[in-house]
Amino acid sequence: MALRPLCGDLPLFLQSYLPNAVEKGNAIQPFITLTYAQSLDARISRGPGIKTVISHPETKTMTHYLRHHHDGILIGSGTALVDDPGLNCKWGPNSFANSPRPIILDTKQKWRFNGSKIQELFNKRQGKPPIVVVTSDPLIKEEHVEYAICPIDEATERIDWKKLFEILKEDFNISSVMVEGGANVINQLLLRGDIINSLIITIGSTFLGNSGTEVSPPQTVNLKDMTWWKGTTDVVLCARLADD
Amino acid sequence: MALRPLCGDLPLFLQSYLPNAVEKGNAIQPFITLTYAQSLDARISRGPGIKTVISHPETKTMTHYLRHHHDGILIGSGTALVDDPGLNCKWGPNSFANSPRPIILDTKQKWRFNGSKIQELFNKRQGKPPIVVVTSDPLIKEEHVEYAICPIDEATERIDWKKLFEILKEDFNISSVMVEGGANVINQLLLRGDIINSLIITIGSTFLGNSGTEVSPPQTVNLKDMTWWKGTTDVVLCARLADD
Ligand SMILES: NC(=O)c1ccc[n+]([C@@H]2O[C@H](COP(=O)([O-])OP(=O)(O)OC[C@H]3O[C@@H](n4cnc5c(N)ncnc54)[C@H](OP(=O)(O)O)[C@@H]3O)[C@@H](O)[C@H]2O)c1
Ligand SMILES: NC(=O)c1ccc[n+]([C@@H]2O[C@H](COP(=O)([O-])OP(=O)(O)OC[C@H]3O[C@@H](n4cnc5c(N)ncnc54)[C@H](OP(=O)(O)O)[C@@H]3O)[C@@H](O)[C@H]2O)c1
Repeated sequence: MALRPLCGDLPLFLQSYLPNAVEKGNAIQPFITLTYAQSLDARISRGPGIKTVISHPETKTMTHYLRHHHDGILIGSGTALVDDPGLNCKWGPNSFANSPRPIILDTKQKWRFNGSKIQELFNKRQGKPPIVVVTSDPLIKEEHVEYAICPIDEATERIDWKKLFEILKEDFNISSVMVEGGANVINQLLLRGDIINSLIITIGSTFLGNSGTEVSPPQTVNLKDMTWWKGTTDVVLCARLADD
Repeated sequence: MALRPLCGDLPLFLQSYLPNAVEKGNAIQPFITLTYAQSLDARISRGPGIKTVISHPETKTMTHYLRHHHDGILIGSGTALVDDPGLNCKWGPNSFANSPRPIILDTKQKWRFNGSKIQELFNKRQGKPPIVVVTSDPLIKEEHVEYAICPIDEATERIDWKKLFEILKEDFNISSVMVEGGANVINQLLLRGDIINSLIITIGSTFLGNSGTEVSPPQTVNLKDMTWWKGTTDVVLCARLADD
């Protein structure tokens, strides 16, 4: 389905939260935007694998506008497996050129490019081929897929986010990454003020109910530079993670 | 502490969600407003008994403006016991006249008027004496407290909300009730489109973390007539529960 036009006031609203040339050029780390859509009760889906409409079509256009401004788009294996998302950019004239590289955090290699929506879009030249994040030489190698081998953080026994983003910049020339979910990934990164440059949350005016997939970090998280946009039925918050 | 002045655009924003003369005059049921302040992760407190600042002082003024428009203000025993709230109205020139009647859902009679903030304000003529909701003749009767004896809903084995509000209107002349919490009460009433006339939610731009007290109903809840207000750091949603 074609996207609606972008709401006229969104570019200015988003401007200072988008990756910018200065930060992209100088830092070892890419510019990282954490973004998702939630219900009033902080659910990002009705449950695993249930495609859930949370927000108005106008904020879907915003998502594609944001994708246009990033080199990479990262999701966890959970989202890749249950949603089979396309992760391309439909905003602007050239889907292939405008689309970010899909980056899938899939150290157990449960997800397959073959047969995925990402492959379908790539075959039609409407999206880029993915980078799969693993912790050692991949056991399975699929055509067109690149693999980012990333060290484990000894404290958490999971991938070291800082190193991952450095590798994405150094080895894959990814200067900006939009992290789109899911809940597990978001709940980790909400604690990483040292990594996240911008936070962009859409809140749809509905309740998905307490069996939905929830975003709530393990501890209090304060924000700064908050600014809100009002849409037809939703609001969007742009902010940065506070230093405390 | 004195309240800040009310933001100039709030009265018009709230107007069509406030109790109105027509509905107050004709119905058997009072006009019921469900209202609370939550974090982005749908927490209404950091945890039981932890006084939590969620929203900007300007929305605190809004709460008192809302109290001014209601005859009663209802909370569950949980909130009464852990927060010891005052529940009066500081907006306008006369706290006593403007304050709603506190209504405490306390069928086990765990809460005491004696020694409470509500009593302190009543003694200073800055707030009204409470109505305690019970299911049979109260075992303890405190001076100045009135008791509303309310039947149990056989399906839920809890107080029958519809009957409670009818009793409040019939016996106590309460034509409008603002329900302020806590989570247990809100999660029940979000499912009661047959009872709730308005929903007013303040969202503060902070995360309280997953050990906080959460508002999320047991199932999906859709809204209608949504409209948002943007404050300095928060947003406020006014809506009605949809019929489906
Ligand atoms: N509304 C929205 O904006 C939005 C956006 C995206 C997704 N969603 C929803 O979110 C849900 C999925 O969320 P989810 O929490 O189940 O899954 P998820 O966050 O997408 O993926 C979690 C998985 O990613 C891997 N992972 C995460 N952090 C890692 C780390 N530091 N190191 C190594 N691997 C890591 C782990 O995979 P392994 O266990 O395989 O190691 C983990 O189980 C779906 O229902 C989807 O619809 C909503
Ligand atoms: N941010 C805000 O706007 C806001 C506002 C208010 C409260 N809060 C927070 O909310 C928290 C308290 O919430 P909570 O969920 O623990 O408690 P709560 O909802 O205030 O009270 C729950 C209790 O009320 C009684 N109750 C509820 N429904 C009933 C029914 N249908 N029939 C009979 N009794 C009923 C029951 O008492 P019994 O078990 O005694 O029968 C139940 O345990 C506190 O941390 C407070 O700070 C926040």
